Amino acid sequence: MDISQQSPAHSLHHLHDPATGLRIPVTRIQLEASPSGEANPPFDVYRTAGPGSDPVHGLAPLREQWIAGRGDTEIYAGRRRELLDDGRSAARRGAASAEWRGAQRPPLRSLDGRTVTQMHYARAGVVTQEMRYVALRESCDVELVRSELAAGRAIIPANINHPESEPMIIGKAFLVKINANIGNSAVTSSIAEEVDKLQWATLWGADTVMDLSTGDDIHTTREWLIRNSPVPIGTVPIYQALEKVNGEADKLTWEIFRDTVIEQCEQGVDYMTIHAGVLLRYVPLTADRVTGIVSRGGSIMAGWCLAHHQENFLYTHFDELCEIFARYDVSFSLGDGLRPGSTADANDAAQFAELDTLAELTKRAWQYDVQVMVEGPGHVPFHLVRENVERQQELCDGAPFYTLGPLVTDIAPGYDHITSAIGATEIARYGTAMLCYVTPKEHLGLPDKDDVKTGVITYKIAAHAADLAKGHPGAHERDDALSKARFEFRWRDQFALSLDPATAQAFHDETLPAEPAKTAHFCSMCGPKFCSMRISADIRAEFGSAANQKLIVAGMDAKSAEFRASGSKVYLPEPVMPVG
Amino acid sequence: MDISQQSPAHSLHHLHDPATGLRIPVTRIQLEASPSGEANPPFDVYRTAGPGSDPVHGLAPLREQWIAGRGDTEIYAGRRRELLDDGRSAARRGAASAEWRGAQRPPLRSLDGRTVTQMHYARAGVVTQEMRYVALRESCDVELVRSELAAGRAIIPANINHPESEPMIIGKAFLVKINANIGNSAVTSSIAEEVDKLQWATLWGADTVMDLSTGDDIHTTREWLIRNSPVPIGTVPIYQALEKVNGEADKLTWEIFRDTVIEQCEQGVDYMTIHAGVLLRYVPLTADRVTGIVSRGGSIMAGWCLAHHQENFLYTHFDELCEIFARYDVSFSLGDGLRPGSTADANDAAQFAELDTLAELTKRAWQYDVQVMVEGPGHVPFHLVRENVERQQELCDGAPFYTLGPLVTDIAPGYDHITSAIGATEIARYGTAMLCYVTPKEHLGLPDKDDVKTGVITYKIAAHAADLAKGHPGAHERDDALSKARFEFRWRDQFALSLDPATAQAFHDETLPAEPAKTAHFCSMCGPKFCSMRISADIRAEFGSAANQKLIVAGMDAKSAEFRASGSKVYLPEPVMPVG
Repeated sequence: MDISQQSPAHSLHHLHDPATGLRIPVTRIQLEASPSGEANPPFDVYRTAGPGSDPVHGLAPLREQWIAGRGDTEIYAGRRRELLDDGRSAARRGAASAEWRGAQRPPLRSLDGRTVTQMHYARAGVVTQEMRYVALRESCDVELVRSELAAGRAIIPANINHPESEPMIIGKAFLVKINANIGNSAVTSSIAEEVDKLQWATLWGADTVMDLSTGDDIHTTREWLIRNSPVPIGTVPIYQALEKVNGEADKLTWEIFRDTVIEQCEQGVDYMTIHAGVLLRYVPLTADRVTGIVSRGGSIMAGWCLAHHQENFLYTHFDELCEIFARYDVSFSLGDGLRPGSTADANDAAQFAELDTLAELTKRAWQYDVQVMVEGPGHVPFHLVRENVERQQELCDGAPFYTLGPLVTDIAPGYDHITSAIGATEIARYGTAMLCYVTPKEHLGLPDKDDVKTGVITYKIAAHAADLAKGHPGAHERDDALSKARFEFRWRDQFALSLDPATAQAFHDETLPAEPAKTAHFCSMCGPKFCSMRISADIRAEFGSAANQKLIVAGMDAKSAEFRASGSKVYLPEPVMPVG
Repeated sequence: MDISQQSPAHSLHHLHDPATGLRIPVTRIQLEASPSGEANPPFDVYRTAGPGSDPVHGLAPLREQWIAGRGDTEIYAGRRRELLDDGRSAARRGAASAEWRGAQRPPLRSLDGRTVTQMHYARAGVVTQEMRYVALRESCDVELVRSELAAGRAIIPANINHPESEPMIIGKAFLVKINANIGNSAVTSSIAEEVDKLQWATLWGADTVMDLSTGDDIHTTREWLIRNSPVPIGTVPIYQALEKVNGEADKLTWEIFRDTVIEQCEQGVDYMTIHAGVLLRYVPLTADRVTGIVSRGGSIMAGWCLAHHQENFLYTHFDELCEIFARYDVSFSLGDGLRPGSTADANDAAQFAELDTLAELTKRAWQYDVQVMVEGPGHVPFHLVRENVERQQELCDGAPFYTLGPLVTDIAPGYDHITSAIGATEIARYGTAMLCYVTPKEHLGLPDKDDVKTGVITYKIAAHAADLAKGHPGAHERDDALSKARFEFRWRDQFALSLDPATAQAFHDETLPAEPAKTAHFCSMCGPKFCSMRISADIRAEFGSAANQKLIVAGMDAKSAEFRASGSKVYLPEPVMPVG
């Protein structure tokens, strides 16, 4: 499979906006003519795959001039990298594997006393290129973008040290977004594999990618990922901080954590999960749960709180984090460390106590003009899903909600992309702005490339189904184009318009592999003798509106003749026989 | 894979009911002890796989004595089988392939003037063995079964000529059921393959199976299926009738259709899809749809109506169908021939006009004490799903709703098991009683065995998620048992309790194949150095209720010691290191 496109009918295309000079990338899908002879214009879809590049050199810095042009940043020396940033084995070896050799830019930060967040600009009434870019991508008015950002109801995760990223927006007024998690772990995988997964995830539609590495070469893996990522990159810095203290949570300190955060700010991480809501007094609320604390970050902080009998240092130092984030435009993703790990524990006292604190922290971050989204569960039975998003939206004054699933049952390990897509559709329908994907390997192992693809496509389904349910303008157009292609037996267009063209075609070809079958007037369920769509065409010709009568029987007959001319053979000896 | 069980930890077990003498089959799952030493009792789950048998001889006739004991049936000669019943090629060859050589029983029908439907008995206040069996399977009071049947809010599809079936009930007061479609088509597959798919589908949890064959050997394939089926078998008789008239819909007559129905009644088909709601005057309502009529049966009848400019003969002869069904206890599955074939066409005038007629026909069938369920869509965007079931329940006075998905978006061919499971969960939550599965091959080709399994498991997820959402008594017990096993690192129990044990274990083994990993205190996402569940156990030991403190740290430590004693090796050189 070519890494740069999903289908031969797809290509990278740019929409030029004369007013701003911006060029917005889309995936253009070429379509065939209808049987009536009517041409079908190319269909453009939102593109997350970026412009493509050699991963050894990294992407071009699309936003570099926009950032510099604002005149509120400075280049500085930055924190000196330490070998421990790449884990203990790097410290032993004296080097990380596969050091980054591509573009090296010294870090930027805001000038002293300046704030460089998109929220800050929006509140000041400044419309940035990032906002214009997003408005064009979303086909909406730029004032909607600015006002949602200013109100905190949307974020554009866009660290000034990640100029390669193509701006995107997360908020309930916009298309529902999806995140894919990648990253190595102590038990497996290499830097090259992770870069490959990044490109693969964005090819299939990941809007952001989180690097959850916990193994060796954490710093260097992240460098490779950010330099090659057209989408925002998120991390959970406590994972790296824990590596720096030999995996012993009680050895963690605010200073080690802060330095890790700054290290990641300088690299260009766009948003960071911060488990500042796991308060000491909430920990006992989890004691009688079926599955206790299942969030890794949540249990690290709970472990720390218990070991020290002190309040969570992420909470006590939260204002300092805000000050740091404001200088790089890093967005908070306020972690739900006490999220339920089973449907039995959903919507309980521990979960909702933490949410109260996340709401408090949301408003605290907004005082610094720092962008915020709030993370949500997890495992929730279907009828309790809606309460999660409605409560979060109310308590957090509409700050974007970012949820993991939720899984609506616990009994299907191996299929948790499905159990969670069901909950994800429901929670997105009621206002969740971004969905974190779940792969078939959830609870069982680390996702490989196939799992990443399955997870991304499953979540594109959930996000799109929610867009349709919300009546998002234009969301139905792709459905309608595909349905029209289906009705007109334009098999190749059905494949090209689908979320996974190669799989759709492979499934079709298993039953009807011959090339004439792609123009055949029947599908494998009915066989060639009887065609329900043919009858529908007859009805349309007799009763349809003038517009629809253009799809006349004559057109179907012409297509039929073409099929007969090609030999009429798929598998059976009979030619197509019209019915009725 | 052994066809008789999903996992080595599973076995066929019978629950004996002393009051009735009935033996109810369940799948018994053996569980290991908790780390604390506490035993976990075996977990029994609802079983659809039947007792198992040699498919050449068929299953034992479980219900034969129950039926005979009621004294209201007679053995008769039955309709003489014709070669055309098996299609034109059988007529040419002089025989069908693979004639059925197992148990041959002459057909039964009711004595003249008698009605032998479960609804009839229920309304008369008679509690049948079938009702008792169902009440034990569902762990509910038999009076609930009887009263729901009497009111038409539930059905037990149980043709007196299918005594091999294990009674099951379809109604919103009971567990949500799923149907799997199988059957050959003009383009592919053999009788043996279809029998194999039947056994495979019921192994994974199909509650009923529809034989949608449209190719050769239709009659003989159905005989093999019914004689081997522990679950009710449904059909769409118009498919076979169409084969008898050479695939030309306009040649269909009431007489040919009626004879086909009787042929199938005598074989033991338990429910039949009848597209009697496709009225002549509704056909023009589909003319301006994006995808016209997509139901095969619906378009056959629409084609017939247009060709003859007459009313649908299934509608005009509906009373005669009721009289026939009452003599065999065949249930109606009133087909939605005008269901939408794309989200664009959902909930439109054609669909809802037909539903009005299906409501009328439901009440007409009830006058004959004939059991009825009503079929529903199809393709419906998520926010319009609920209206479908609420409208059907209101118009049809609570008659069970049986829906195909619905798919909540059209853009993911190859993944329509997922697009439809999302809609299926929503529609079942609001009262749909049975869900017809959709496989990954939907719209693209015929499902193979893997697709059947994927479709069944995906729909078990949807049905179970809906049971949880409805608060169905006991539905959460399997989730809780699996979650407890997960929390206690009983990996083998997690696999055994899951819907697909082999897949769950295979996914786990990809990352951590060694046997010690199955007792290891970590999962692959965290690695061996840090364990969030360990921290939870510490919290429980310190703050938990007395009951929960039984799961003490000492128990975890014992497990840990066992792991170390086994060599402590999974992949890494480090032993498990407790944290915090």
